[in-house]
Amino acid sequence: MPAVRSIGRETYHYRWSVGHEPAVRIDPGDEVSFDINDVSSWQLTEDSTSQGLVSLDASKLYPLAGPVYVNGAEPGDTLVAEVLEVKNDAFGWSCIAPGLGLLGEFKEPYLYKWSLTDPEFAHFEKGIKVPIRPFCGVMGVAPPERGSFDVTPPGRHGGNMDIRHLTAGSKLELPVWVKGALFSTGDVHAAMGDGEVCLTAIECAGRARFRFQLLKKTGLTLPRYFAPGEPAPKKGFYVATGIGPDLMEAAKSSVRNLLDYLEGEWGLKRQDAYILASVCADLRIHELVDQPNWVVGASISLDVFP
Amino acid sequence: MPAVRSIGRETYHYRWSVGHEPAVRIDPGDEVSFDINDVSSWQLTEDSTSQGLVSLDASKLYPLAGPVYVNGAEPGDTLVAEVLEVKNDAFGWSCIAPGLGLLGEFKEPYLYKWSLTDPEFAHFEKGIKVPIRPFCGVMGVAPPERGSFDVTPPGRHGGNMDIRHLTAGSKLELPVWVKGALFSTGDVHAAMGDGEVCLTAIECAGRARFRFQLLKKTGLTLPRYFAPGEPAPKKGFYVATGIGPDLMEAAKSSVRNLLDYLEGEWGLKRQDAYILASVCADLRIHELVDQPNWVVGASISLDVFP
Repeated sequence: MPAVRSIGRETYHYRWSVGHEPAVRIDPGDEVSFDINDVSSWQLTEDSTSQGLVSLDASKLYPLAGPVYVNGAEPGDTLVAEVLEVKNDAFGWSCIAPGLGLLGEFKEPYLYKWSLTDPEFAHFEKGIKVPIRPFCGVMGVAPPERGSFDVTPPGRHGGNMDIRHLTAGSKLELPVWVKGALFSTGDVHAAMGDGEVCLTAIECAGRARFRFQLLKKTGLTLPRYFAPGEPAPKKGFYVATGIGPDLMEAAKSSVRNLLDYLEGEWGLKRQDAYILASVCADLRIHELVDQPNWVVGASISLDVFP
Repeated sequence: MPAVRSIGRETYHYRWSVGHEPAVRIDPGDEVSFDINDVSSWQLTEDSTSQGLVSLDASKLYPLAGPVYVNGAEPGDTLVAEVLEVKNDAFGWSCIAPGLGLLGEFKEPYLYKWSLTDPEFAHFEKGIKVPIRPFCGVMGVAPPERGSFDVTPPGRHGGNMDIRHLTAGSKLELPVWVKGALFSTGDVHAAMGDGEVCLTAIECAGRARFRFQLLKKTGLTLPRYFAPGEPAPKKGFYVATGIGPDLMEAAKSSVRNLLDYLEGEWGLKRQDAYILASVCADLRIHELVDQPNWVVGASISLDVFP
């Protein structure tokens, strides 16, 4: 019978470190239920305004639930985190923060607040409805190096990978770098598009339940995952391309092309178009071999529109 | 009643140029049926070997069917090409060409030949079956500049965009740069993954039928398209990540991670794994905002495996 362990909102840590004291110790096959604080450590709430973004304490970003010590885990193993359930709280936010995000031309801080009381859709401007597909932006293990490390950059320890496909039913495979693996999670997103282009998803608090398994001596060096996939939208996709010799610039160009469409066709103001692209448009690399120009597509489901 | 016009295999041109004599002249609303030569101009056939790649005449790559002159099309308009049908011939090929493609470590030319007599699947090694989803790798209009231009790089004229989603039921929107638009198409692919990582899809001859419409004075500057989407695979996706501070390197890393999986789990030799990734794995940009590291996923449908 697998044990089911719980980690509450009072149990969290900032930064990655092999030195964190485990919150729970489990055996392979056990489940852990995580109660997860929002990525801002509640610095942003229903009462916040765009100006609240200016005074954020960056040392309080990414409160992670954990770490979980997995008995028997050794460097060179694979830790499998099976995602059994992810639920978001009823309040969410997205933001544009000057100097961050994909596009440099947004110069003003901008906070968008979401009511997430409808379990199926996050309701946006102009009757647009974004499907709720919650996942944890951060799922990772302690890196092998001594010291403590910023959560923002993902890496071979996984971490802040922001893989929107890690919804319930998926399985994440992480390389183990330290004894016990020391798995932590955080940064619940109610919805996000591949790319997370404006910097944020629909950020929220929530809970997640994972079952852990251990594969011994695999030598895995970078994360892999299984995802169940999602049904095709009934109305299809609309996709804006970006084309050029630098892949990052092509990605930027595809997003600008999509924002032009969202402004022109749906009457969104440009900041809102950027937020919408971040929470539900997907960046696909169509080709990166037709020298010297690569093609990126920014794709949005037409089902989100009224 | 829309006219239906045909362009046969004897009518083709190399390179893009505003100077090409139109193969047909049509009105908006008309359909054109294109009979399309394979991208090598039949330099590669059922009898070819890997050594045949070494002696390819590059000036005979990309024979394009067209151009179609659309009456009334002017610079600043949008030409809409509605994809009514794409069919592939019963022979296809894929190749690895040293110095080209995403990964530099493949040093030997390698030709893989496909029998495409099954209309649903392209049968590969080890019982693997790749779904047939034909589209035209090249769909474009004449660029505005005088002279003639290599077909390989795509651009604001569309062209060799290799967008695998442009199957029957899709609609491509292209900016018009010259009077009459001068649309051409070519490079039929029986199947391809987003990225086309090894350089080629399942390359073949075939036919396509498009209906053309004109949107006046839109000022579109980069292609956009509608795609109907495709059903989720029954068995889900397996995805290998690449993570790092350069988006192109992260893409390479994700593909190497996927090739490791295809070799280790399915016993494919590495060249075949690379070909398989090119014809049916999709590159997604999971995030490009968590400074300084970006995450790319190379995703393969588990339905292709026995």
